[in-house]
Amino acid sequence: MFAHNKRLMYTVRVSETNPVLANLMLEQFGGPQGELAAAMRYFTQGLAEDDPGRKDMLLDIATEELSHLEVIGTIVCMLNKGLKGAVAEGLEEQGEMFRMLNKGGDSHVTALLYGGGAALTNSGALPWRAEYIDTIGEPTADLRSNIAAEARAKIIYERLINTTDDPGVREALGFLMTREIAHQKSFEKALYSIEPNFPPGKLPGMPQFTDKYFDMSNGSAPVPGPWNNGPQWNVVAHEQAQMPADGRDGSASVKLGDMEAQLGEAAKERLASNLEDDPTTGADLGAGPGAGATTGEDANEGEMSAAEMAATKSRNGGGRGRTSPRNR
Amino acid sequence: MFAHNKRLMYTVRVSETNPVLANLMLEQFGGPQGELAAAMRYFTQGLAEDDPGRKDMLLDIATEELSHLEVIGTIVCMLNKGLKGAVAEGLEEQGEMFRMLNKGGDSHVTALLYGGGAALTNSGALPWRAEYIDTIGEPTADLRSNIAAEARAKIIYERLINTTDDPGVREALGFLMTREIAHQKSFEKALYSIEPNFPPGKLPGMPQFTDKYFDMSNGSAPVPGPWNNGPQWNVVAHEQAQMPADGRDGSASVKLGDMEAQLGEAAKERLASNLEDDPTTGADLGAGPGAGATTGEDANEGEMSAAEMAATKSRNGGGRGRTSPRNR
Amino acid sequence: MFAHNKRLMYTVRVSETNPVLANLMLEQFGGPQGELAAAMRYFTQGLAEDDPGRKDMLLDIATEELSHLEVIGTIVCMLNKGLKGAVAEGLEEQGEMFRMLNKGGDSHVTALLYGGGAALTNSGALPWRAEYIDTIGEPTADLRSNIAAEARAKIIYERLINTTDDPGVREALGFLMTREIAHQKSFEKALYSIEPNFPPGKLPGMPQFTDKYFDMSNGSAPVPGPWNNGPQWNVVAHEQAQMPADGRDGSASVKLGDMEAQLGEAAKERLASNLEDDPTTGADLGAGPGAGATTGEDANEGEMSAAEMAATKSRNGGGRGRTSPRNR
Amino acid sequence: MFAHNKRLMYTVRVSETNPVLANLMLEQFGGPQGELAAAMRYFTQGLAEDDPGRKDMLLDIATEELSHLEVIGTIVCMLNKGLKGAVAEGLEEQGEMFRMLNKGGDSHVTALLYGGGAALTNSGALPWRAEYIDTIGEPTADLRSNIAAEARAKIIYERLINTTDDPGVREALGFLMTREIAHQKSFEKALYSIEPNFPPGKLPGMPQFTDKYFDMSNGSAPVPGPWNNGPQWNVVAHEQAQMPADGRDGSASVKLGDMEAQLGEAAKERLASNLEDDPTTGADLGAGPGAGATTGEDANEGEMSAAEMAATKSRNGGGRGRTSPRNR
Amino acid sequence: MFAHNKRLMYTVRVSETNPVLANLMLEQFGGPQGELAAAMRYFTQGLAEDDPGRKDMLLDIATEELSHLEVIGTIVCMLNKGLKGAVAEGLEEQGEMFRMLNKGGDSHVTALLYGGGAALTNSGALPWRAEYIDTIGEPTADLRSNIAAEARAKIIYERLINTTDDPGVREALGFLMTREIAHQKSFEKALYSIEPNFPPGKLPGMPQFTDKYFDMSNGSAPVPGPWNNGPQWNVVAHEQAQMPADGRDGSASVKLGDMEAQLGEAAKERLASNLEDDPTTGADLGAGPGAGATTGEDANEGEMSAAEMAATKSRNGGGRGRTSPRNR
Amino acid sequence: MFAHNKRLMYTVRVSETNPVLANLMLEQFGGPQGELAAAMRYFTQGLAEDDPGRKDMLLDIATEELSHLEVIGTIVCMLNKGLKGAVAEGLEEQGEMFRMLNKGGDSHVTALLYGGGAALTNSGALPWRAEYIDTIGEPTADLRSNIAAEARAKIIYERLINTTDDPGVREALGFLMTREIAHQKSFEKALYSIEPNFPPGKLPGMPQFTDKYFDMSNGSAPVPGPWNNGPQWNVVAHEQAQMPADGRDGSASVKLGDMEAQLGEAAKERLASNLEDDPTTGADLGAGPGAGATTGEDANEGEMSAAEMAATKSRNGGGRGRTSPRNR
Repeated sequence: MFAHNKRLMYTVRVSETNPVLANLMLEQFGGPQGELAAAMRYFTQGLAEDDPGRKDMLLDIATEELSHLEVIGTIVCMLNKGLKGAVAEGLEEQGEMFRMLNKGGDSHVTALLYGGGAALTNSGALPWRAEYIDTIGEPTADLRSNIAAEARAKIIYERLINTTDDPGVREALGFLMTREIAHQKSFEKALYSIEPNFPPGKLPGMPQFTDKYFDMSNGSAPVPGPWNNGPQWNVVAHEQAQMPADGRDGSASVKLGDMEAQLGEAAKERLASNLEDDPTTGADLGAGPGAGATTGEDANEGEMSAAEMAATKSRNGGGRGRTSPRNR
Repeated sequence: MFAHNKRLMYTVRVSETNPVLANLMLEQFGGPQGELAAAMRYFTQGLAEDDPGRKDMLLDIATEELSHLEVIGTIVCMLNKGLKGAVAEGLEEQGEMFRMLNKGGDSHVTALLYGGGAALTNSGALPWRAEYIDTIGEPTADLRSNIAAEARAKIIYERLINTTDDPGVREALGFLMTREIAHQKSFEKALYSIEPNFPPGKLPGMPQFTDKYFDMSNGSAPVPGPWNNGPQWNVVAHEQAQMPADGRDGSASVKLGDMEAQLGEAAKERLASNLEDDPTTGADLGAGPGAGATTGEDANEGEMSAAEMAATKSRNGGGRGRTSPRNR
Repeated sequence: MFAHNKRLMYTVRVSETNPVLANLMLEQFGGPQGELAAAMRYFTQGLAEDDPGRKDMLLDIATEELSHLEVIGTIVCMLNKGLKGAVAEGLEEQGEMFRMLNKGGDSHVTALLYGGGAALTNSGALPWRAEYIDTIGEPTADLRSNIAAEARAKIIYERLINTTDDPGVREALGFLMTREIAHQKSFEKALYSIEPNFPPGKLPGMPQFTDKYFDMSNGSAPVPGPWNNGPQWNVVAHEQAQMPADGRDGSASVKLGDMEAQLGEAAKERLASNLEDDPTTGADLGAGPGAGATTGEDANEGEMSAAEMAATKSRNGGGRGRTSPRNR
Repeated sequence: MFAHNKRLMYTVRVSETNPVLANLMLEQFGGPQGELAAAMRYFTQGLAEDDPGRKDMLLDIATEELSHLEVIGTIVCMLNKGLKGAVAEGLEEQGEMFRMLNKGGDSHVTALLYGGGAALTNSGALPWRAEYIDTIGEPTADLRSNIAAEARAKIIYERLINTTDDPGVREALGFLMTREIAHQKSFEKALYSIEPNFPPGKLPGMPQFTDKYFDMSNGSAPVPGPWNNGPQWNVVAHEQAQMPADGRDGSASVKLGDMEAQLGEAAKERLASNLEDDPTTGADLGAGPGAGATTGEDANEGEMSAAEMAATKSRNGGGRGRTSPRNR
Repeated sequence: MFAHNKRLMYTVRVSETNPVLANLMLEQFGGPQGELAAAMRYFTQGLAEDDPGRKDMLLDIATEELSHLEVIGTIVCMLNKGLKGAVAEGLEEQGEMFRMLNKGGDSHVTALLYGGGAALTNSGALPWRAEYIDTIGEPTADLRSNIAAEARAKIIYERLINTTDDPGVREALGFLMTREIAHQKSFEKALYSIEPNFPPGKLPGMPQFTDKYFDMSNGSAPVPGPWNNGPQWNVVAHEQAQMPADGRDGSASVKLGDMEAQLGEAAKERLASNLEDDPTTGADLGAGPGAGATTGEDANEGEMSAAEMAATKSRNGGGRGRTSPRNR
Repeated sequence: MFAHNKRLMYTVRVSETNPVLANLMLEQFGGPQGELAAAMRYFTQGLAEDDPGRKDMLLDIATEELSHLEVIGTIVCMLNKGLKGAVAEGLEEQGEMFRMLNKGGDSHVTALLYGGGAALTNSGALPWRAEYIDTIGEPTADLRSNIAAEARAKIIYERLINTTDDPGVREALGFLMTREIAHQKSFEKALYSIEPNFPPGKLPGMPQFTDKYFDMSNGSAPVPGPWNNGPQWNVVAHEQAQMPADGRDGSASVKLGDMEAQLGEAAKERLASNLEDDPTTGADLGAGPGAGATTGEDANEGEMSAAEMAATKSRNGGGRGRTSPRNR
């Protein structure tokens, strides 16, 4: 059960209204790295958790994130307070509202659709979606997801702090940013208190593939670093990495029942491409200048220089002169 | 302006209720290839169209698709009519509703969330979204999109017809399917009445790249077909296709201002990877059996056969025996 | 600020596990009419509200809805408790898990992707999205939205109660359902304590259009009811309803600058349809049996009876015999 | 079935093009409170409705909303008419198009992706989604949803009217706004003609919970208002509101089968947290200045003042001086 | 299997950074007509294709599109390179970052949320979604979809070329645009090499409906064009087009089981509208000026002129003077 | 640039077709933890990366994930091969297709909409969306996100392996699962090679908040564990945790300009709730049995027992007998 407390977890002092800054702040209200995502991530994990210690921790932090959600949402509301009155009551001069709605970012959506409130969108006006939560119900994976989520949230707060010189906003954001650091430390402790925790889950890896690094790029070999170099690693060189890893032929097969095979054949036959003929196509029918060669012509090797490309303006200004086959 | 007519465009006679079949029918009500997508596709194109003939055609067909939407939606409602009453009024035996909601497909969503109505979802219960409409406001592209959309809708109707032996449903679906054929023919005419129409738009292609086919796969050469073979085509062989097409070095560059360069350098330095050291990692801290080699060990080349993999059940049943470094 | 309380707002006693029922329950956890939507709807309204009484009410009810979210999520977790262990640890018999994952509904997603936890999805496995919240920041509209939202939530709970005979689940759902009734009453009071509240907002309606009912359907006149009948209403008869409401010509116009007009003309000319010619089209090139008439033929008036449609199986079994023009 | 009428329901006279204003207008074309949402909301309700009078009303109003969709979409097209030609044909001066695309709001998306047409997005360029429709197939809930939807739509039109001084646009928007008022009145009549209609649906509330108001906030008592005060209400005081409403212990339980219990135990054991040890974590490995205390250190109680926070620029400028444990 | 090549398929030379232009370029990186959509469209078709020639073609082109994705993404990264450093390291002057984030378009999202990288969004900051792929697994439809997709992609590139005067960007975009032309030609060939290919799929159309054009608009007849005119077409005149196409009554019916009928009747009765009474409604309770007539009043026929509408500012400035019934 | 190789990275041998199993496999094709998400996550990071070693690693692993995408997609296609032919060609017996489409899970969507191909959806038929990618462009956060993503992917593969006894499928899935382990190890190395890497980014935490653990739950104290216990932590006890963390009053404020203040006051006044009156509401107008007390009545304290709730069927079977005020 939850209780609400009429005081904010951190006092909010905003110097002046600024709907464009408010719009940026939405990133941590209804954005992917924001506080609703954090709260719901830990809350849903807490509900399903059977370990009593982790359950307490998850619900404590979830509740703190809800309290953060309120702080950042309140910052948004304060920054929008001038906009909100104007949208509600209208302005004397008709053109003035148009200007107010076009000050920058996606603040026009906040004004027009949300009336200057704190909407659960990111700074690009995309409504929050639970796709942001990557919980899968296995603590050795979920705690790693939480660690990463806290790291991301810390960074977005850092960026937001950098966008404003309002000391009250900077201070409250500083608190919120710092708490992500503390939460990350708690989740790290929780992960490493499960032993072992790697690989996550229960099934072991196939030993022949746990220590290989496949060089998938041709050209120069990959820069050696601790992620592919040293006694722990076997690098599979590019040529070899382009061979099936299991040493067989890299093909795919399935055993089909009789009717399945028959229907498959029927479909294949119905849809077989005639490789011999060179059919006239819809593109041939409609081709104009700049289409390149069409059926019955030789491929075009004329070149257009970069400068020509840069100057190109119209269909007639580039490409080989030609006319539609229908006009010939 | 629109007017509604109380008669359906095609009479609907359904033999018996079937909420699972109803759920499949939703594919053409609120699915990506369905009638709302068709109606809105042509309606929005019609609004923006300046050519009077095409405008008439687009609005005529849009209106017909709205009429189709009503037909397919009515089929859904008829098939759900038993479910609807049950959901509204409840059933005597409590377990019975559970069975009714679990007859198959996603019909449980239609029952529970939509009360047995025709919801604007596809057969997988995904609500309709305007991402399904690919109109871009250029008739030589949009008419091709319309042709393709009609082809897709025709196929989905064909599949739906194949799912049922209810003659009344088959007949109404047959009508709807056939009209997609007729619409495709109209859109084809409209496309080819613009001359030229290929390439779409106004800028010509760069002649050196309009007629080339790049063989991007290594291994055997591509099967020759009219799409890469014949006088119209120059095939760029695989080796050559892996060279930058412009004959330069395939690199990327941008000119930076002084402060930009300086900030970039600062970020690079702050985040530089130390390539020399082999750091202990979080995975090392938590590693258990099946993790493969960890820092300080040699890469593991033991193999697990396919049969072993197939029989694997637990962390202890596979992988090299090893214990966490923290336990050593 | 929020505080969490380790006791649930309502005690949950589940008789036995049932992942399919759990999946249905998700509708009120992460579905459009569910508790997260309710909590966030009122919480965000509360943040932006300047009236102290309404602010208290919104935050009280938001907090209660969060507490409900915990109750319904806990029911989901209890119903999934058997599934969760199985997914985490695997089962002896390999085929058994396949059967467990295919018991019905979308419970396979909960098992496979969410490990048997309570995910923020609806019963169709669609993740929650803030599009479910329709708050616009004007209390005379938002309170009506809240009233409607409570009514919808009440109904979904009623349907869920009907799906199960587990007395502990029914009782907890009964509590949750009842609270929606109480909340609706509070929101009604709050709406009517604003005077006047209709029309919502500040601008008055245009008097000539506030009391009209447009008969938009041809065929019989609409059934008279209090929504279109009586002294309060002027019905605009169908014929008249198809005339522009403003008495002008129902056309659209805009004044264009010179360059705008010129560019528009250029586009129109480039894209003009040739109405005279009857172009061969892509459909003509590929036409086979069942395509109907193609270019150069007369329209086909042959009919296929309903019985024929019902029996149709293949391209050759229906339609007029014809061959592709390319083969002629 | 539907018919289209070549005249608009309201004549549209736009003074001059303005793609930024056009972008705002999209809110009522493809936005959540817009005309497509309205039309589809009533159309789908009408299809499923069995009461003949309400069915007529729903389809009449749905058809009118489609006619409104055409009016607002036409306004968008008129406002974009200059942009559309420019996008189609290009401009002489290359930089000019860049400026035209960056005039404000999300008009760049309309230009670049939609070619200056009326796309089914909101003013934030989010495509329309059927999540906007909250119909659940129970008239006593759906009519309340409709009432609320009309109230919201009225407000968005009011805001749009306030954004422009173009008299032709204001007038057409005034018509559209007014019709939402009339529709709301019709839906109100339809709701109250069902008796009783509260609580919606069929199941009664549990009497002990219908009249309670839970004070969920600590701090001062809620402001008394008609929503929680008077003979009709029992306020549950904050202390009591934090007790389970059913008088039991607020715990959750489920009966598990033997195998279920065993698998659950196995998972719990595998994933048990070791509460005794204080493990070194990944954060410890990577910790630098500003990380606070790490494993083996005492918690840090140094404070950073608000002014320091406001001036913070770099990792070295704040926090306790410390170095990574790996470097010690 | 794939291999990566460290050279780009086309060399990228960017003159100077420009985050607003970068944001526009995202349209072809993570937008609906962009390169990821293209690559995934052909890749998934290729996986399922059984015709060896088409399979090769689809995977060759998919691979080329992945290579294009890298080119356009690299252009985005180059244009954002200044922004990226600033976001990572912060700027000396606090307000400067605010200005940098508000230069136009949705570049603030790229900065704040994505740190100046190339995110898989369109130019409106909407993340990519697989709804953009319209593949249905039938080559005669899918190849048409591919043709249309290439046409759309060509146009978006054309528009992007028009937005910039940076010659290096124009040239690389010119290459990408041209390849869409070549791909379209290949897909056209592949479509027409299947004979017949129209109608797509296997079921024939019903002959009586393949050649009809329904005039769905009243007012003037549709402009005659090749899409509705000539020997190939039968135009169904507007009057006739408003009759059910099957010659029956255009009604809908289903046979219900006894219990189904009974439950349906019960629901209908419970929810029946009382057509006789004229109930007082919620709108009546809250009505104020500008609401029009309320229950017990005569419909209001006063008119507001367009000029009045244009000047309307407040509730008291328009509408008939009236007071709430509750105040009378 | 990319090249394709006609061999799979791992040979696929499927024993028999099974569209329901195919549907589960989609989780790793188009699901949130699947291979497209992995490939695009690393590919987009690689494009923006300036550190040459990490750039190589990211593109190598991205390319390997694309190769995995092909393996899992091919498994899906093999499992669907019987379904695909049936959908394409139809079946003799009409009811048979209905049964084939309703075998379980969401395989009906794959059949009906995607024709038996491998669609980019998860196992719940939700199309892939780039919201799954949580990259923010800061390596110390992104590498943690990658570590977590690999952990999640490993688990989903483990679950998929458990769902099938087909040895060929198990073996290929075992390979894919193992590679996630290896990738996680590489990303761990890459993270810890940046020193320091915690806290991520550049700004330090505020020292007074980095080491605190807030006990946000009332009731018993949290279970002590390494995440809140030991010298590293200061636990803020529940009572104290409900005080604003900054020691001030937890209120929010903003300085408003004159006009802003005035407009805000006007809105507040227009929308003020009348706290004195007890208005009749819409719920009062429509109230029936089970509604609890309505205006003018005393709150209802009658109780309904759990057994009564469990047996409740109709509005008349529960609640206090009462009639609508309109009928009194």
